[in-house]
Amino acid sequence: MSQLLLVNIKSLQGIDESGKLLKKGSEMQEWETISNAWLLTQNGCIANYGEMINLPQAYQGLPQHDCDGALVLPSFIDSHTHIVFAASREEEFVMRIKGKSYEEIAAAGGGILNSAAKLQNMSEDDLFEEAFFRLRKLMSWGTGAIEIKSGYGLTVADELKMLRVIKRLKAAVSIPVKATFLGAHAFPLAYKQNRRGYLDLIINEMLPQIAAEGLADYMDVFCDQGFFTPEETSELLIAAKQYGLKPKIHGNELGYTGGVQTAVKHNALSVDHLEYTGDAEIEALLNSNTMPVALPGCSFFLGIPYAPLRKMIDAGLPVCLASDYNPGSTPNGRMGFVLSLACTQMKLTPEEAMNAVTINAAYALELSHEFGSITKGKRANLVITKKVNSLAYLPYSFGEDLIENVLVDGKIIFPTQSF
Amino acid sequence: MSQLLLVNIKSLQGIDESGKLLKKGSEMQEWETISNAWLLTQNGCIANYGEMINLPQAYQGLPQHDCDGALVLPSFIDSHTHIVFAASREEEFVMRIKGKSYEEIAAAGGGILNSAAKLQNMSEDDLFEEAFFRLRKLMSWGTGAIEIKSGYGLTVADELKMLRVIKRLKAAVSIPVKATFLGAHAFPLAYKQNRRGYLDLIINEMLPQIAAEGLADYMDVFCDQGFFTPEETSELLIAAKQYGLKPKIHGNELGYTGGVQTAVKHNALSVDHLEYTGDAEIEALLNSNTMPVALPGCSFFLGIPYAPLRKMIDAGLPVCLASDYNPGSTPNGRMGFVLSLACTQMKLTPEEAMNAVTINAAYALELSHEFGSITKGKRANLVITKKVNSLAYLPYSFGEDLIENVLVDGKIIFPTQSF
Repeated sequence: MSQLLLVNIKSLQGIDESGKLLKKGSEMQEWETISNAWLLTQNGCIANYGEMINLPQAYQGLPQHDCDGALVLPSFIDSHTHIVFAASREEEFVMRIKGKSYEEIAAAGGGILNSAAKLQNMSEDDLFEEAFFRLRKLMSWGTGAIEIKSGYGLTVADELKMLRVIKRLKAAVSIPVKATFLGAHAFPLAYKQNRRGYLDLIINEMLPQIAAEGLADYMDVFCDQGFFTPEETSELLIAAKQYGLKPKIHGNELGYTGGVQTAVKHNALSVDHLEYTGDAEIEALLNSNTMPVALPGCSFFLGIPYAPLRKMIDAGLPVCLASDYNPGSTPNGRMGFVLSLACTQMKLTPEEAMNAVTINAAYALELSHEFGSITKGKRANLVITKKVNSLAYLPYSFGEDLIENVLVDGKIIFPTQSF
Repeated sequence: MSQLLLVNIKSLQGIDESGKLLKKGSEMQEWETISNAWLLTQNGCIANYGEMINLPQAYQGLPQHDCDGALVLPSFIDSHTHIVFAASREEEFVMRIKGKSYEEIAAAGGGILNSAAKLQNMSEDDLFEEAFFRLRKLMSWGTGAIEIKSGYGLTVADELKMLRVIKRLKAAVSIPVKATFLGAHAFPLAYKQNRRGYLDLIINEMLPQIAAEGLADYMDVFCDQGFFTPEETSELLIAAKQYGLKPKIHGNELGYTGGVQTAVKHNALSVDHLEYTGDAEIEALLNSNTMPVALPGCSFFLGIPYAPLRKMIDAGLPVCLASDYNPGSTPNGRMGFVLSLACTQMKLTPEEAMNAVTINAAYALELSHEFGSITKGKRANLVITKKVNSLAYLPYSFGEDLIENVLVDGKIIFPTQSF
């Protein structure tokens, strides 16, 4: 029986024994803490916790880690990433600085199709090595569960290659990894004049093979202007459901284009982006089980609006925040910075932001029964901060990484290497 | 004779043998590089550099550091900081999230006066210890020369205490530290109804003692609405000049309030903030020796406008970027993130942003004859990055620190400890 006792925790953060699987509206401000605390992990799970003055005698001989005035938090959960990619795209970044728009760069063969062209020329092994390095870096920054999408393949062979890389990543790390099939990320050049042909390719070729190899948990579609229409999205989601793939949607990044309504109609686990979210979208989400997911790193990097999370929380919705780590629109996945963006740019309180990257993010990956809060019996995926005074200090120190150690299944796995 | 040979530099960045002390307008795009390079330091200075294929035989036995595919850059120079402070102010950050404005928080006794109250109760030794930790952290992030301001004392004894701390910091580190007296940071509560009294205190008590102890290089005034008027600012700068303190100004952060014009009138070394810079301000700066300094971290954190640097460069001006590290409006000083803000939010190219944090920042501290570019004879304060493909990758990877090693006077001083 493996056990580890964390002692001298300045403040144990994010305790929840309510059994809630998500927090919405004013509940997002709920964030229970214990000052001067201990926490016991056992067989990979949170076994018990309490105040140092009440530390049971029986625990005092167990292997200990002295947190020395640091905070302990549930790990961040990153429910939306594209970390399998072949190359960075800083040249497009410079084009954009010089005045080109996202759509113009895409129209010139850049954007997603640029990533696809590079990925198609890279071996599965090389893709795995680079993605594994990125994943380990994210883990060192406190990400304790993650979703990874395909969508830079856009051919049968290359979408399968990406999903096999994700399957190898699942096996290679000890944190949960959810795989999302995003063949419907863009129409490849070869199908620009034959949309029907690409839909058929996804439905008749990709989905059956993905299902046969058990390569994906979820199906995602970029339902937005210039990409997939709500009708096309619906057809794809219905097809995917027959193979057991639950829906997620990229929606409302570029306009009020029906992504949210399509997500709700199909009972999607989440609808992600949401820079264009008005009253009709909020109303639709209020009557749904679909988690709204904002990606503030994308807004920061592209200079597009931030999703109106303040308004959404005030309307009673739950919200989740994710990194969107990808080489085109969000070339970074440090969740600590996502927290800073949420507080400084979207006016979430530190507590709301933490719920958005823990319990609500776990919900968006069907993990909130096991992850996303300090709860007895949940998995001990935890973050130990550097010495800080308060939770608010984390988003406040916006340019700085304040993670000292990371626990996965009750074991300290970082720092073991530097990045 | 101490020598160090850097070899296998993927790209040596920021070479300049032109003798320019600053770059303005289209010159800000100038950024010379050599691929696959070496660089020799000798007695703390840059002695020579070139391409690996032309590495002189005579150098091959010297102590070497293999840069292994990394970039080498001139160190960042941070020309505007407030790193001597007593306490973080994340509680005000949370107030602001909940809707209070900077002015409202200041009016309620928060803001600068909050920092002053805390600093007045802290010993010089404790202030030194905390500021020294911050300074070392900044150096580990690549800052190779820095300016530090007083201005949280606001009494004779406490302004002197802060400046003595800065003097101790100068002695404690090997990078250049410039000390700026900012007694005119705000009117202390005791003088709210007696502005004349505080001006007299600065002129008749603070300045003579500061000069007698040799505690400051520069004089700074917060010339903006709610703070010091242009007339008050002028009077203070004239008094300071008699003690040999050259002017700098905090101006145009809160409105079009004459800060720029006052700076130009007094031939200030720099005018800093500039969120409100229109055609009249640009015109004034074009006919001056005053360096305009933008502080994008403050705009990011407070949600105020960014200084219009794109327009200023296009009008032919030089611009500089600094961190403004302080506990109220910019609780972070990582210059790598300042670069990201410059490129993503202010639309500077990576080359323009680098000139703004190197040669032009050196100019703002009267250091550009010795620092701010890869130039034979200049001091070897350098940054070695992690393995990256291009200069643009640094601002592109916005949430990440990509500094591997830091050289000061030709010696590798980081990593020597982790932060």
